[in-house]
Amino acid sequence: MATVDTMVEDIDFRRRWPGFDFRKLGRRLMTINLSDLAAMGATPRYALVSLALPRALSTWAIDRLYAGIAQQAQRFGCAIAGGDLSATRGPLTLTAAVFGELPKGSRPLTRRGARAGWRIGVTGRLGSAAAGLKLLEGGRRPATPAERSWVRAQLEPVPRLEAAQILRRAGVRVAGDISDGLYREVEKIAEPAGLGAELWADELPIEASLGRCHGVAAWRLALFDSEDYELICAAPRRQLDTAAAALRASTGLRLTQVGRLTREPGITLVRNGRRLRLRHGGFEHFR
Amino acid sequence: MATVDTMVEDIDFRRRWPGFDFRKLGRRLMTINLSDLAAMGATPRYALVSLALPRALSTWAIDRLYAGIAQQAQRFGCAIAGGDLSATRGPLTLTAAVFGELPKGSRPLTRRGARAGWRIGVTGRLGSAAAGLKLLEGGRRPATPAERSWVRAQLEPVPRLEAAQILRRAGVRVAGDISDGLYREVEKIAEPAGLGAELWADELPIEASLGRCHGVAAWRLALFDSEDYELICAAPRRQLDTAAAALRASTGLRLTQVGRLTREPGITLVRNGRRLRLRHGGFEHFR
Repeated sequence: MATVDTMVEDIDFRRRWPGFDFRKLGRRLMTINLSDLAAMGATPRYALVSLALPRALSTWAIDRLYAGIAQQAQRFGCAIAGGDLSATRGPLTLTAAVFGELPKGSRPLTRRGARAGWRIGVTGRLGSAAAGLKLLEGGRRPATPAERSWVRAQLEPVPRLEAAQILRRAGVRVAGDISDGLYREVEKIAEPAGLGAELWADELPIEASLGRCHGVAAWRLALFDSEDYELICAAPRRQLDTAAAALRASTGLRLTQVGRLTREPGITLVRNGRRLRLRHGGFEHFR
Repeated sequence: MATVDTMVEDIDFRRRWPGFDFRKLGRRLMTINLSDLAAMGATPRYALVSLALPRALSTWAIDRLYAGIAQQAQRFGCAIAGGDLSATRGPLTLTAAVFGELPKGSRPLTRRGARAGWRIGVTGRLGSAAAGLKLLEGGRRPATPAERSWVRAQLEPVPRLEAAQILRRAGVRVAGDISDGLYREVEKIAEPAGLGAELWADELPIEASLGRCHGVAAWRLALFDSEDYELICAAPRRQLDTAAAALRASTGLRLTQVGRLTREPGITLVRNGRRLRLRHGGFEHFR
């Protein structure tokens, strides 16, 4: 199994964010790739890294960037097998390709193959990374422990490699990672199967400290903006119950059932007993 | 074996070159990576591609770019295993990572391990790609068959995958690809081994049509600017003779002995019976 991801300055990150750190940037480059591998149920083996560097970037910055890459790779058992440095007149552009192996005889996890009636589960908690991004984009240094944890969730997500193996061993076959908002990730699982989904607002595992962030309700952050690199999966209810118990026992991480797949197309949110029809980036009252 | 390479607009190519074609650009992205694999003696298996695209780039352009990538990958037996598209506010930035396998039980070709007295060989002919680049940078469309062949050498080099396997089977162990000027490639082989090299100007396999290009003698293009993605190798004379015969028989490609490795450090050029001491980008008369 293999995956590649590119991070482009001023699209995926900004050097002028308060507290910007090249080492964290390097770690995040590896994380987003390792998370992709986790979503396939693969174990990372080695990585290739290609950096397009603006000429004004100092050696010090490049060293820290590379240290972050190497650190995160090593932490997750991944060898840096090679790389390429280019100059660029444009933004700092970082690419990593990561290769992993599946346990012998096992098939990769994919977003395909979900069935109507299956439950949708997510690991950990959602919304913090989006709240962190709002803080960083506002140019404000995080001032409270909660704010610091949101920024950390944005800059230093954890690839759920171990959790993915536990889900897989519990029989889960349909999974992905959440980098694009929960709504969009649910859609990626439901649509190709010709299904819809119902999500339960009260069950969303929203980070407790979130409340309201810049006037946006936490459940909206979790639903539309979540990029916490948690895992999403779909399976029959009992299988998710088993997986949740195994996950909690080995890692302390929660697996929360946040909805179910439906024969009816479209994605609806059940909130305070009302059904809202969700669309990209928003919702409408259900007819 | 794996390799990664990035091409950055306005560093590695320009869209305003006369006759610029996204399909050729896509093919070249694959070629420079396939050439790296060839230099290791590996056979390509699959590739990952990551494109950072300026927003103004048309779908038509992206389609052609991707068609070129897919075409060249397929031509050399390489499956596109995945990819990533990013937006960028900067230059078009293309990265490919390519994975290959070595024949069972064989070790990779490397630039390390050369010995004093060994001959230095190069495949094909050198200098055309550099001449092509000068034409393109001058903004002039190629007007003669020779000029067209130079531009083709720059834009559409051929990865020497088959040639590398033939060299390897003939017992060659020290090799690389020429993307950075012959001088620099010889240095990469000689220096780590604590050796020097002597190059024979009259033996350089310079493309016959070159003569003088923009006032630069052909042998200088071949020596300092060659980026023809030919192979360089080092081995005992007899082994190179055998390899050359095998190469010519299977592919018609020449393997020319252009010099030898010496115990004395430094790289010298023997030309018209005189010895010139070479340096980066130039030379000085030998003391």
